[in-house]
Amino acid sequence: MRDVDPVLAYRFLEAGPIVLVTTADAGRANIMTMGFHMVVRHAPPLIGVVIGPWDHSHAALVETRECVICVPTVDLARKVVDIGNCSGDDVDKFERFGLTPEPAAMVQAPHIRECLANIECRIADDRMASDYDLFLLEPVAIRYDDERKERRTLHHNGDGTFTVDGRTVDLRERMILWKALQKDI
Amino acid sequence: MRDVDPVLAYRFLEAGPIVLVTTADAGRANIMTMGFHMVVRHAPPLIGVVIGPWDHSHAALVETRECVICVPTVDLARKVVDIGNCSGDDVDKFERFGLTPEPAAMVQAPHIRECLANIECRIADDRMASDYDLFLLEPVAIRYDDERKERRTLHHNGDGTFTVDGRTVDLRERMILWKALQKDI
Repeated sequence: MRDVDPVLAYRFLEAGPIVLVTTADAGRANIMTMGFHMVVRHAPPLIGVVIGPWDHSHAALVETRECVICVPTVDLARKVVDIGNCSGDDVDKFERFGLTPEPAAMVQAPHIRECLANIECRIADDRMASDYDLFLLEPVAIRYDDERKERRTLHHNGDGTFTVDGRTVDLRERMILWKALQKDI
Repeated sequence: MRDVDPVLAYRFLEAGPIVLVTTADAGRANIMTMGFHMVVRHAPPLIGVVIGPWDHSHAALVETRECVICVPTVDLARKVVDIGNCSGDDVDKFERFGLTPEPAAMVQAPHIRECLANIECRIADDRMASDYDLFLLEPVAIRYDDERKERRTLHHNGDGTFTVDGRTVDLRERMILWKALQKDI
């Protein structure tokens, strides 16, 4: 496990993995599954997410203005889907799904120990929340599990099928204009 | 080739592929590469994209309020990177990269014949453009190449390396709450 500069959030999110999001309100933690997110800005880093009132986590996000974006890998595929198909109204999801909450550095919401990366975020701008449930988040800390073997993330095709990461194509030498982005994680 | 209901844009974009974006201003078409995009809403469909003044396409997008989001596959990997590393100021990118512009149904910007899907969009909301270069787009038409064999998309890891689609995990039977999303493309 290793702490990583929060400016590197784009390295975990631009590729479009399905993610989990934790919140905590009055000491009660919840987890949701989220497919609607994007990198908005490299630096200072900014992430866009859609979390709506249909999500139990919405109230905790609005109340605390904090959450953690957690990146799961393929070994967690069934849990990722099942977490998105039950509600924190009824269920303690950490308990039901056998996931381990760990304290975050900068926010009250917990990390999920089993995830590849945990990106702690605070709401930076919620002007678009009333119309579109779109929040802009500032990553404030990242913890990254650099020791785990399984690193393949999942990409939701929108219908309950997921594409698993395949091989990597390295075209870094062609990134003439964008070389500055090639920092080590 | 087949036309698809624009409400299905999420099926092409939620998984986070790197995309190309075409614009046309005063008859001059351009192409850019874009990694910063997300699905904002299923229906009516809404897509968030970041296109800034550092992109030559920005002026044409702002002027015409239209663009086409084109989804390339792995066979176009080098072109996708090279398109993102030169500027439409200097180059006719269709010509330089041997790509074929085709007329769109609803917008002036062209399709790219070689792409898996071409999603025609109009700006729906640009309130966040001045602060974040974030535009919300409404997909108005989709053409989909359902005959091509190569269907693997690319996911940008942010540093010039790209993850290629691997195998698919089908967890549709677990999508209890979200069954309505499982429409045929």
